Amino acid sequence: MIIVFKPHAPKEQIDAVADEVRKLGYEPRLITGVEQSICACIGDERSQHTLETLTVFPGVEQVMRVQKRYKLVSREGRSSGTVVPVDGGKLKIGGRKFHVMAGPCSVESQEQILSTAREVKARGATILRGGAFKPRTSPYEFQGLKEEGLEMLAAAKAETGLPIITEVLAEKDVALVARYADILQIGARNAQNFALLVAAAQTGKPILLKRGLSMRIEEWLLAAEYILNEGNPHVMLCERGIRTFETYTRNTLDLSAVAIAKQETHLPVIIDPSQGCGRADLVVALCKGAVAMGADGLIVEVHPNPAEAMSDGAQQVTPEIFGGLMKAIEPLLAAVDRSL
Amino acid sequence: MIIVFKPHAPKEQIDAVADEVRKLGYEPRLITGVEQSICACIGDERSQHTLETLTVFPGVEQVMRVQKRYKLVSREGRSSGTVVPVDGGKLKIGGRKFHVMAGPCSVESQEQILSTAREVKARGATILRGGAFKPRTSPYEFQGLKEEGLEMLAAAKAETGLPIITEVLAEKDVALVARYADILQIGARNAQNFALLVAAAQTGKPILLKRGLSMRIEEWLLAAEYILNEGNPHVMLCERGIRTFETYTRNTLDLSAVAIAKQETHLPVIIDPSQGCGRADLVVALCKGAVAMGADGLIVEVHPNPAEAMSDGAQQVTPEIFGGLMKAIEPLLAAVDRSL
Amino acid sequence: MIIVFKPHAPKEQIDAVADEVRKLGYEPRLITGVEQSICACIGDERSQHTLETLTVFPGVEQVMRVQKRYKLVSREGRSSGTVVPVDGGKLKIGGRKFHVMAGPCSVESQEQILSTAREVKARGATILRGGAFKPRTSPYEFQGLKEEGLEMLAAAKAETGLPIITEVLAEKDVALVARYADILQIGARNAQNFALLVAAAQTGKPILLKRGLSMRIEEWLLAAEYILNEGNPHVMLCERGIRTFETYTRNTLDLSAVAIAKQETHLPVIIDPSQGCGRADLVVALCKGAVAMGADGLIVEVHPNPAEAMSDGAQQVTPEIFGGLMKAIEPLLAAVDRSL
Amino acid sequence: MIIVFKPHAPKEQIDAVADEVRKLGYEPRLITGVEQSICACIGDERSQHTLETLTVFPGVEQVMRVQKRYKLVSREGRSSGTVVPVDGGKLKIGGRKFHVMAGPCSVESQEQILSTAREVKARGATILRGGAFKPRTSPYEFQGLKEEGLEMLAAAKAETGLPIITEVLAEKDVALVARYADILQIGARNAQNFALLVAAAQTGKPILLKRGLSMRIEEWLLAAEYILNEGNPHVMLCERGIRTFETYTRNTLDLSAVAIAKQETHLPVIIDPSQGCGRADLVVALCKGAVAMGADGLIVEVHPNPAEAMSDGAQQVTPEIFGGLMKAIEPLLAAVDRSL
Repeated sequence: MIIVFKPHAPKEQIDAVADEVRKLGYEPRLITGVEQSICACIGDERSQHTLETLTVFPGVEQVMRVQKRYKLVSREGRSSGTVVPVDGGKLKIGGRKFHVMAGPCSVESQEQILSTAREVKARGATILRGGAFKPRTSPYEFQGLKEEGLEMLAAAKAETGLPIITEVLAEKDVALVARYADILQIGARNAQNFALLVAAAQTGKPILLKRGLSMRIEEWLLAAEYILNEGNPHVMLCERGIRTFETYTRNTLDLSAVAIAKQETHLPVIIDPSQGCGRADLVVALCKGAVAMGADGLIVEVHPNPAEAMSDGAQQVTPEIFGGLMKAIEPLLAAVDRSL
Repeated sequence: MIIVFKPHAPKEQIDAVADEVRKLGYEPRLITGVEQSICACIGDERSQHTLETLTVFPGVEQVMRVQKRYKLVSREGRSSGTVVPVDGGKLKIGGRKFHVMAGPCSVESQEQILSTAREVKARGATILRGGAFKPRTSPYEFQGLKEEGLEMLAAAKAETGLPIITEVLAEKDVALVARYADILQIGARNAQNFALLVAAAQTGKPILLKRGLSMRIEEWLLAAEYILNEGNPHVMLCERGIRTFETYTRNTLDLSAVAIAKQETHLPVIIDPSQGCGRADLVVALCKGAVAMGADGLIVEVHPNPAEAMSDGAQQVTPEIFGGLMKAIEPLLAAVDRSL
Repeated sequence: MIIVFKPHAPKEQIDAVADEVRKLGYEPRLITGVEQSICACIGDERSQHTLETLTVFPGVEQVMRVQKRYKLVSREGRSSGTVVPVDGGKLKIGGRKFHVMAGPCSVESQEQILSTAREVKARGATILRGGAFKPRTSPYEFQGLKEEGLEMLAAAKAETGLPIITEVLAEKDVALVARYADILQIGARNAQNFALLVAAAQTGKPILLKRGLSMRIEEWLLAAEYILNEGNPHVMLCERGIRTFETYTRNTLDLSAVAIAKQETHLPVIIDPSQGCGRADLVVALCKGAVAMGADGLIVEVHPNPAEAMSDGAQQVTPEIFGGLMKAIEPLLAAVDRSL
Repeated sequence: MIIVFKPHAPKEQIDAVADEVRKLGYEPRLITGVEQSICACIGDERSQHTLETLTVFPGVEQVMRVQKRYKLVSREGRSSGTVVPVDGGKLKIGGRKFHVMAGPCSVESQEQILSTAREVKARGATILRGGAFKPRTSPYEFQGLKEEGLEMLAAAKAETGLPIITEVLAEKDVALVARYADILQIGARNAQNFALLVAAAQTGKPILLKRGLSMRIEEWLLAAEYILNEGNPHVMLCERGIRTFETYTRNTLDLSAVAIAKQETHLPVIIDPSQGCGRADLVVALCKGAVAMGADGLIVEVHPNPAEAMSDGAQQVTPEIFGGLMKAIEPLLAAVDRSL
């Protein structure tokens, strides 16, 4: 930590701070500048008091952190990226092969999920998505088919062989959802629901962790750190748009987060273009951008009849558009030395 | 709902949309404008499909909602505001009397919480705050004393008589926390953890619902609607700062939200200036603003020694500063016809 | 400046940076930490190269600024705040007396501005506002009456004695506007139009500098620094709402900026509640908050018939509501030891 | 426009609004809904009063716009996109050929700009960028070499043949800058400096219009509309990052804006990855994303020695990295059927 003193802070104030620094387990090193003094505090910022509280001392202007707050997710000292095995290793996410997860926002009926599974598989998707527990802004909106929806997903997997990704919303449902899901999805609104992160981690299942609507990248990585800290290394980071002032899109997809997450961590990065913009007509373009930026996969909402979808129809694409999407990304994948 | 068609959308496209509108349970009324046509869709937007999915039809430019999405929290048709009884009705929040909840960010020891309770009571606080379960951005940070912390709070209540507000982080802890707490606090990061909202609501305890970091006011009110929808009317809304681009403060306290929440709903509104700015030196000024804007109470972090606090020391004030704060708001309360 | 090295950065990389630091005019002081080394660079950060470019060196993780970037506006070393004399010293802004500037968004006719001037004066306003040059998002919207509008303002001043504040949009109009205006207003969209800031400063007139829609407070103060740097000390800072994700209000009025600006600078701070929320029904509440937070004045949009206003009618209040507003703030002003 | 009435608004209130609607030049059509009535107002929203002021009438809940606010920039009714001719038509931007503008943030010396021009030309850049007038947050930072810088750019063009893009900051400099520049750049901070937009438009030169830091896409397109409205059709839109809460990047590059701008308008879209993230290490990845999303060109900051750059060194890449960038985008351009 570095403590910056106010210009002309008197010696007694500086000494009092240095004493407190020592008391809190750091070694203070004072440096007198032209206008202001600083105190570099030597110690491990992750295992100790962080000293940020020292702003309450008279004479202190600010306290700045030096070390990164995450370590298990950090790329530092790792020569290679994490590859996440899915469904007993049948698929591997994070390698040269690019994966597309596709399916409806919500599971609505056996027929709907089965037909969608067939359609997306035929066009190259390798994982089936579908929500059985739905987080909805209003209590009056469709909350998902719950366990019945999970069973429908299982039937679709039984027929198509596609592993399943589905969201878990509540600690009490973790065991249930983990019985059906090959990948547990943690949604944006729960990205800092630490109790849920820990419970999901403890299942040992691969976890797709969405970035919260207003999460800084550092906070997102620290949420992933919670999962790794429980001994579960199988985490995929998922950028799905952040909240900004723009109104033409529902969220602003932060594609620079792909490059940063790949640089800062060893975890695979997945892009959700559907939530990312909230508009079906932008999904293909965003998928193309995601591929070129170096994402390891996509998660795309596909519905046989978006106009009658029970949630988020405006951002779901038809199987036909999804087919065009898969064709559109192929040459781009080749250009970045990856393949479906 | 109102459907706006693209300029010069052909009749067949418009008719197809009108048919779908009917199929989804609304009555369509077409209006031909100078450049564009619109379709007003008559029906109850809360009990039906919302039609927003119709943007996927060719010829549709946008779909606009007309009705408000919340009803139980709405002020409409209510002559008076909700008054929340606390601790068996010993206190009432939402009336002419203004309440100040005060105490440390985290309960750290019996001594710490007891002495703080005495100090804040002596200066006019009527409710004791203190975190036993702490949501922390990093897994390496202090996570709270948990049940032990709750017992310390209980001892402080036993001595001072101050009712207790404390945060509940996880569904599995709701019953435990509810045994000790007079008010359950739902934190900003859990404000759309709907499973937790429902579980907390079902205890019947008063609930203080913080606004999430990037929650629009509409979403905050809908989260409150989840609680009322479970049959628990004792909700207090708490504005605690939203996330913006500004860096001089940790969050931007949205004081206009007080006026809007009072106008849109019948619920009491509490301001958290400590989280709201993250800086002890701004807390008094923000409390003054909150009082003048019409808030029903404050929740203020007070610590006997902020520099050694185990969480958020930079925003906690000393008991002495808290005393000054209470003196500073007194004439302002009188000016808006309220009192401590 | 402080340079933070990557963990385990090799000595040669650190030495190369230290050499560059010296070359750029600073004295480097290396400190070896537990995980990472840092280099404190001693020198005046405002008069030299800022070293932020050194992030391009291998081994450098980040570069952090220590010193504040502004000095002329800084409160440091000043015992008292600036008092801005208006209209040859007839009014003084920044002292115990609180000033309310009021009038229509746009000057629309001689009759309109005259009647508004009379109405607001009768209710306690001390300065007349009115836009003659209007910055409009669309080229098809009313752009103001320009010089004719200025003449109407002059006539209103001649009759009522109220000094005039009006916006200047373009360098080429500075001389013209300065002939009529007692205070030059720089709007939010021009707050970093440095050519305009300099031209306005050079007139010597008092300047009201609005905060830009997405300006950090530091940037706003640096814009003011441009004006003081031209030798014009008569600057008032005006907070008018920042752009956030919230949609119930047009902007989010950042009232904490009042407290920060008063603490960081010696300049008076004015609040614009009309732009701040874009809704007439919130104006009174926001004015009350502004007074309690310690603002030195208000600038309020008042129109005799808001429904027919040629710009921003939705946020303008009638003279009657303005009268209620003036009554509402009176006891609050007394509570913070100020008066109209 | 659509006026939404409050639930149970009495008939007299609705009639009063309808009368006002007629008075303001629209034809009102009332529709009675289940809970609320609405009034569709038929007329041209761009040529008349916009009715948004009617929110001040009792009984009105909200007023919603139906029509788009821009027309000259709109893609509607256009079969093909605009192609902007540069330097007397030597280059054309907006066609199949992709253009890369490159050069230093600031022109610092004849030697620096000449050598950079040679380097970027050798690697495939077709236009030379370089700032002679620099908008700087602080008055103490390097403000550019001004006319001298323009002459250095002219010498670099004379030698290399590369047309020049350079920023114009002030109306009074428009004529001067236009004598040297082949493309006038309007910076983010001036994107709603309408006086400057008009003055630049009147030169007839091609204009690259950067999106402001907190500009909604609609506002950006309306700023372009100002230029077309002056009779200058040669506008390129430039996305350069918007301001968000994220701190790992200086701005958040909104790549979805490429797809939206291409869909909404007929204008070419250029991406500025350097300003877009503020970090040299992300520039290549962002350029790849921009190509895949369908941008028509890039503007990239390249400096022979970024560590000693007089502005924004942290985001400038070396000529070597720029060479790698050009190689990296080539296969992606092929994949989207474009070429350098």
